[in-house]
Amino acid sequence: MTSLMRAELGQQPDALRRTIDALLPRTADIAKLAAETRQVLFIARGSSDNAAAYGRYLVESRAGRLGTPAAPSIATTYRRKIDLSGVLAVAISQSGKTEEIVETLDWAAGCGARTVSVTNGAGSPLAEAAEVALITQAGEEKAVPATKTYTTQLAALSVLGLGLGADVAEDDLRRLPDEVAGLIEATEASPALPRIVEELAGVTGAVVSGRGIAFGTALELALKIKEACYLHAMGLSYADLLHGPIAVVDAKTPALLVAADSGPTLPGTIALAERARSAGAPAYGVGGGDGLAAACSAALPGPGLPEWVAPLGLIVPGQILVENLARRLGIDPDVPRGLNKVTQTT
Amino acid sequence: MTSLMRAELGQQPDALRRTIDALLPRTADIAKLAAETRQVLFIARGSSDNAAAYGRYLVESRAGRLGTPAAPSIATTYRRKIDLSGVLAVAISQSGKTEEIVETLDWAAGCGARTVSVTNGAGSPLAEAAEVALITQAGEEKAVPATKTYTTQLAALSVLGLGLGADVAEDDLRRLPDEVAGLIEATEASPALPRIVEELAGVTGAVVSGRGIAFGTALELALKIKEACYLHAMGLSYADLLHGPIAVVDAKTPALLVAADSGPTLPGTIALAERARSAGAPAYGVGGGDGLAAACSAALPGPGLPEWVAPLGLIVPGQILVENLARRLGIDPDVPRGLNKVTQTT
Repeated sequence: MTSLMRAELGQQPDALRRTIDALLPRTADIAKLAAETRQVLFIARGSSDNAAAYGRYLVESRAGRLGTPAAPSIATTYRRKIDLSGVLAVAISQSGKTEEIVETLDWAAGCGARTVSVTNGAGSPLAEAAEVALITQAGEEKAVPATKTYTTQLAALSVLGLGLGADVAEDDLRRLPDEVAGLIEATEASPALPRIVEELAGVTGAVVSGRGIAFGTALELALKIKEACYLHAMGLSYADLLHGPIAVVDAKTPALLVAADSGPTLPGTIALAERARSAGAPAYGVGGGDGLAAACSAALPGPGLPEWVAPLGLIVPGQILVENLARRLGIDPDVPRGLNKVTQTT
Repeated sequence: MTSLMRAELGQQPDALRRTIDALLPRTADIAKLAAETRQVLFIARGSSDNAAAYGRYLVESRAGRLGTPAAPSIATTYRRKIDLSGVLAVAISQSGKTEEIVETLDWAAGCGARTVSVTNGAGSPLAEAAEVALITQAGEEKAVPATKTYTTQLAALSVLGLGLGADVAEDDLRRLPDEVAGLIEATEASPALPRIVEELAGVTGAVVSGRGIAFGTALELALKIKEACYLHAMGLSYADLLHGPIAVVDAKTPALLVAADSGPTLPGTIALAERARSAGAPAYGVGGGDGLAAACSAALPGPGLPEWVAPLGLIVPGQILVENLARRLGIDPDVPRGLNKVTQTT
């Protein structure tokens, strides 16, 4: 049995290649627009908001600009003006049709911000609303859980980072599609995959954690587990987990930990795996190299990429895990209950 | 049997009165410091970060300034400089001793920000590190779950909002201590309290939601349930809940909904209660007036205060609920497993 979700996640190498080819030439447009700004405001919800978390850490850690996740209700419910001169507003929506996001980007422009959109919807209201539209080339996505539209959003945000002068190597991005192709193969061949699926099938909740540039990956993996497997998965940063929620980690509540193979947040992630296991909880790794794998009960491989671009591959083993777990639980991953492909909130 | 947590939550009327009396005279100091800034950066973790969420919505919706929740790892792990001129950095920590928070405030100052601290620790490193220190007057807090130190942090942030020129009435804040005293009595006399405790004792998870100025209250109630009752409680905004996690709401996963008795986010909260119940889930209200109570299976009363200051009372019925639920589950609410009163993260 195969699902749309599995088919679409398998299309990611091609979708990423097309997106990178289409968007890398736009760095000059981004740089020109951003020249009049000094900080970034991200406007997004759901998976797109998890992509925004990546964008936020990327621009702060590599481009030296403050990143702010917007509170859309200020625009749509409180209808309050804020001084946004010097702000680059970046709105992210798969469909480009979510009214709340379009309305909030329009509000930001009215408050003095310059505007960028990231969407898979060419010609959508969001694409039309921005001064620079970064159109991802994922192709149509039919399964409700976002896969290729999410990773191509991350690719667009990597290009945004390059346009903002991030001190990273563009070549890392060009290596990505082949890395993802290899990672899909390696994950599906890993003996850890059926083991983790089987163990997660017996629990009601899990904690998913990652730090810094990998934090958005943890949020996205937690969201996927919630929406497609109906588990109580909490996506938390390393530090927030230690401020209270660590109390819920026990033998029935495993920890899933995501990290790039290198970078300054890796040691803390390894320490967290050790702490979870000393509390009697299984810890499952995604990425993090040999160090994290050794500290975990079982681990899936991550991409062989530097930290700044690793999240574009790091979610892929998680997508495969979710798709397998959903089917193991008797859930059709393509159409989880209660969800539509385009979410309207006001 | 009585707990320290119950004793300390009962001290909130006095603690709030002392804090308001001590801090209201500081609005001029805040205004002077903030005159050179145009936006606010909040630095906090855990319950203090939930207080920061209130501060963020307050300054955006009432004082017209952008609020950003800081990503401390940029300071402490990535050690990257960001341009923070024109930024008022507000660091919040109950003890004032959490190294990560002190270090991040120092980093912000080094990046050009002006600095404020909110702490119950007079003479603590955090109090010493800021240009303006707003010292809360909660008295010593011994139970691990924060109660009076949290609501007095909110009071300090209300004063911050007044110093930043929020278009609200200071008198509402002066009415608060008596409102909280009445609310404690009304909550403990409510027949809904034992009913909700009994029903929550039979579930493994819950969703807690609130919007805008009440969003931080939802986060704080979810954190309390996680840390003192070991339930998988997810704190989510109204909109984020509809983007995926609504799938987990079912008969075994009730929704707890918090709202002020009035304000622009109340209609959406009522609609969410109706949606949860139509999915077969119990919905329990905290505050939200007659409208929310009518839409819910059971409801606890909220404070009779305008929206901007309602969160300072709105968490109190939640604290009482958590303290009762912990004891019902055989947990000592004062010393949940895995937690210390001062959390050190780096």
